[in-house]
Amino acid sequence: MASKPVLAIIGGTGALGSGLAHRFVAAGFPIIIGSRNAEKGREAASRLVAPTGSVTPLGASNEDAARAGEVILITVPWVSQSGILDTIQAFVDGKLVVDTTVPLRPPKVARVQLPREGCAALVTQGRLGPGARVVSAFHNVAAHKLKSPNSIDCDVLVFGDDAKDREFVIALAKEIGLRGLHAGPLGNSVAAEALTSVLIGINRAYKVDGAGLRITGVIEQ
Amino acid sequence: MASKPVLAIIGGTGALGSGLAHRFVAAGFPIIIGSRNAEKGREAASRLVAPTGSVTPLGASNEDAARAGEVILITVPWVSQSGILDTIQAFVDGKLVVDTTVPLRPPKVARVQLPREGCAALVTQGRLGPGARVVSAFHNVAAHKLKSPNSIDCDVLVFGDDAKDREFVIALAKEIGLRGLHAGPLGNSVAAEALTSVLIGINRAYKVDGAGLRITGVIEQ
Repeated sequence: MASKPVLAIIGGTGALGSGLAHRFVAAGFPIIIGSRNAEKGREAASRLVAPTGSVTPLGASNEDAARAGEVILITVPWVSQSGILDTIQAFVDGKLVVDTTVPLRPPKVARVQLPREGCAALVTQGRLGPGARVVSAFHNVAAHKLKSPNSIDCDVLVFGDDAKDREFVIALAKEIGLRGLHAGPLGNSVAAEALTSVLIGINRAYKVDGAGLRITGVIEQ
Repeated sequence: MASKPVLAIIGGTGALGSGLAHRFVAAGFPIIIGSRNAEKGREAASRLVAPTGSVTPLGASNEDAARAGEVILITVPWVSQSGILDTIQAFVDGKLVVDTTVPLRPPKVARVQLPREGCAALVTQGRLGPGARVVSAFHNVAAHKLKSPNSIDCDVLVFGDDAKDREFVIALAKEIGLRGLHAGPLGNSVAAEALTSVLIGINRAYKVDGAGLRITGVIEQ
């Protein structure tokens, strides 16, 4: 990626958000960790180690992060999703928004429990409005694996109604060592979102800690 | 599998049904190909080659196949599902029913279009009644690969509310060279059903003909 956009990671103090932040900072991206509590965002940012010569990671409130970010990553728990989206809605018009939300409802997180809108990605698009270019991705990657330097044996299914926006997110994934794949329109996101509950169940059933997903039979990359 | 049950393959003249029939016959299972047209079922059965010493495959109406089968496999198109289930409903009480139905609605088969009940497997359970022990599986395997002698690079996610019934279907899958995995309750089937549309879209986007699925990070088998 020739020019690296400023990534705002909304809810970036959580497990998935901080894992993605770790990898994107290591890959040389300018990032802003957004949090409901700006101070917590700054603390999390201060713990990230940027490579020599790259921009120091920043922390901010979710609103300020969304305002300053060129690409917005949503990494918030399902139960907080709508409320947090409302706080950033004014700052996402025309921007690419990468939604990672999975509709997990504790305590039965290994049971698929979809929203009546169909999937979390469609909830996000509805909440942010048609101006936001929503793509969903990174649903199936175990958060703790993002913080390890090891390669991750998991593909990233990328959903969105615009092929160029999907392509951009596939390129983002590649920057952090993950293979992204065009997986169809935003509504197809239900497949990856539901699969996350299945993977959580597989982790339990087989006593492993990071079951993932590979799409076979696709030669490219 | 020490004792091989009689498998009734409802809609067994279709692509997935005949692919599964091919593999189960080769594995030495007694099978009955069910079809709405009994003659077509018999024709399809006559084309299957059973190994020396094993039972000759039979063909029959879907009703007769369901009546005689010990385990029932449902391999019918989504649009025909409810009607065909009604014809076999009287013969499935207490039996294990392996549902493979994916809710594809032509022409947009690469777009996830789920039924209001949540997924096809729950429709099947509802239609057959609580007496049928419904497990869903084999959603993601490319039908044409089942007819090839080659190994298939695809896992089988197995959904059902009873762990022993899932275990049995995992053993069935193993008999035809496929790794099955416990994937949670029947309602989780939505993950694999939706993924089939995603895989169809991936086949188109990457110009391949049999994208499949592997779950990574699970050591056993």
